[in-house]
Amino acid sequence: MPQFDRRVPEGDNRERLICAECGFVAYENPKIVVGSVVAHDGRVLLCRRAIEPRRGFWTLPAGYMENGETVAEGAAREAWEEAQVRIAIDGILAVFSISRLGQVQVIFRARFAADSADPPYAAGPESLEVGLFAWDDIPWPEIAFPSVHWALNAWRDLGDAPLGVPAGNPPDDARGTQRLGETAPGLTAPGLTAPGLTAL
Amino acid sequence: MPQFDRRVPEGDNRERLICAECGFVAYENPKIVVGSVVAHDGRVLLCRRAIEPRRGFWTLPAGYMENGETVAEGAAREAWEEAQVRIAIDGILAVFSISRLGQVQVIFRARFAADSADPPYAAGPESLEVGLFAWDDIPWPEIAFPSVHWALNAWRDLGDAPLGVPAGNPPDDARGTQRLGETAPGLTAPGLTAPGLTAL
Repeated sequence: MPQFDRRVPEGDNRERLICAECGFVAYENPKIVVGSVVAHDGRVLLCRRAIEPRRGFWTLPAGYMENGETVAEGAAREAWEEAQVRIAIDGILAVFSISRLGQVQVIFRARFAADSADPPYAAGPESLEVGLFAWDDIPWPEIAFPSVHWALNAWRDLGDAPLGVPAGNPPDDARGTQRLGETAPGLTAPGLTAPGLTAL
Repeated sequence: MPQFDRRVPEGDNRERLICAECGFVAYENPKIVVGSVVAHDGRVLLCRRAIEPRRGFWTLPAGYMENGETVAEGAAREAWEEAQVRIAIDGILAVFSISRLGQVQVIFRARFAADSADPPYAAGPESLEVGLFAWDDIPWPEIAFPSVHWALNAWRDLGDAPLGVPAGNPPDDARGTQRLGETAPGLTAPGLTAPGLTAL
């Protein structure tokens, strides 16, 4: 493998990874996660992760956006891949910045495209299981990431109201620097107001 | 330089660039552009580009988000770098997907942080010049990108109203696949409703 040095390219103002052999600049930029809170009859769709990080914990259908798609197309693709659900997207529910990970999350509010009282869903290859949960039945202690709490709270706060300004990070983690579990055991993790949450 | 092959890694479902020597997977994901419509006294701040692409054309202060910052911090940094302006951010005005370029744009509504009738601004290293333009004085034929039109129109449509649901792509370019100039000469480019626009 070629060696990459970390230095400031000409005309730039910050260090980049530069190939010592050919001068190629390997820019590292934040990645976009697209996902959705998919609701049906007051219940929300959650997926239990079959992959690391946080294997076995519950998350929204969401994942890295791919080149060549729009944010909405990416969210729909993730709902299909992880929960085998075709979704109808309402609009943007939240935009979160997770500066710790170099990540921006665009989370949509959505419903099942199928007009059915009992719409189909199933675990895709990256999920162990998939379920529709009433608010009080959400497995709060087993939620995978802080931003899942944030998105669920934003969805709950909105109720049946039309979408408005997207939710952002909670004030006590405005830059997205905290992990679940960085608070003392028994305390509610910062920014997480969901009932029943215990710090992991 | 090592050779990168394009094939589907194990457990994935699409082709990636993979180093033939060591198996390193070089994921290519969309990049995030952060920027803002900075208004003062009904006029908007535009920068004439000193760099390619579209050198010499006018754009919003905007650029690629960097790791370790939030979307709002990135937009504020770009306003400083390109127009030497400290901004106060109101909130998200628009989220655009430019699937042609693998790009998501998060555009804020902002004002000058300085509480002054005549706030300072100046061309940064990536700008030839910077100006505040009344709507009718915007150099429409010399706008750099379709999304600058979209953002300015979203700003104009909103007027003094509070921010709501972010604007998205216009319906006639919902996936962000069109360039300026892909319509016949003399016609208004698709999705561009600004006055005086001629296709480039």
